[in-house]
Amino acid sequence: MEHIRIKPLTSETFAPFGDVLQASGAPDRLLNFGTCGRFHDRARLDFGAGGRAGISIFDAEARDLPYRLELVERHPDGSQAFMPMHSHDWLVIVAEAGETPGQIHAFRAGPGRGVNFLRGTWHAVLTPLHNPGLFAVVDRIGDTRNHEEFPLPQPVMIVE
Amino acid sequence: MEHIRIKPLTSETFAPFGDVLQASGAPDRLLNFGTCGRFHDRARLDFGAGGRAGISIFDAEARDLPYRLELVERHPDGSQAFMPMHSHDWLVIVAEAGETPGQIHAFRAGPGRGVNFLRGTWHAVLTPLHNPGLFAVVDRIGDTRNHEEFPLPQPVMIVE
Repeated sequence: MEHIRIKPLTSETFAPFGDVLQASGAPDRLLNFGTCGRFHDRARLDFGAGGRAGISIFDAEARDLPYRLELVERHPDGSQAFMPMHSHDWLVIVAEAGETPGQIHAFRAGPGRGVNFLRGTWHAVLTPLHNPGLFAVVDRIGDTRNHEEFPLPQPVMIVE
Repeated sequence: MEHIRIKPLTSETFAPFGDVLQASGAPDRLLNFGTCGRFHDRARLDFGAGGRAGISIFDAEARDLPYRLELVERHPDGSQAFMPMHSHDWLVIVAEAGETPGQIHAFRAGPGRGVNFLRGTWHAVLTPLHNPGLFAVVDRIGDTRNHEEFPLPQPVMIVE
């Protein structure tokens, strides 16, 4: 079985798949008499025709490593952002673009790191490493199904 | 000086000011073969004419209790949601509606609790109780100022 090694999550390596949402570098604005930094408008949000933004909460079961990946999915009609409501590491697993998923990449997101998947990005289901696996999710609210699944012909193992 | 006692945050008591964003009750949908609950579309988002949704990250200094409140603010052109990227308690301070702020209320938000302020709701600046005070913020991106401040004629003390 193919083994995929987990890499650190950085804005540069993740750029083809989406945005890393984090307070890195100098803030774009200082608010509230200097007591709060605003890192402004960091996600390439896209809700498509007939869609609108919504905030949902996901409560996902933590997974153990190594993690056997059997399926990826994508949302053809909109972006999807995940912001952890905790300070634990979590896994971000994506596949390169194509009508079927390309090469798989796994990233470890540390404390204070969210991501926004660009519209149509192949990704694994939400994969926290600790319970409770609570995330705030900003994605498209609309009437379309906006969901495609792709079972991998050969499962892969995500390893440290 | 007037003392305002902190209350627990509940959807019912907070409803006039906005939405509590939390995984409470049964999920609206079960995803990923039952491993993830989706609490769907829980915020009354409103980005007004000419605005769009954006995700920003705020990094705010933690405050101590008792907390001396001297100013509130509001965003006349859109809603503003705060999702903690940590599992610590934080304070949500609002004032009742009016051209000037009405009665002040303070709520303690526990782990896994975010809020969405309805458009125009008077509220205090972001008030974490622990460092780092990281929050994902969903608010209006647009060309208007969308910000009014109101210094309180008499500061109040927020107490446990």
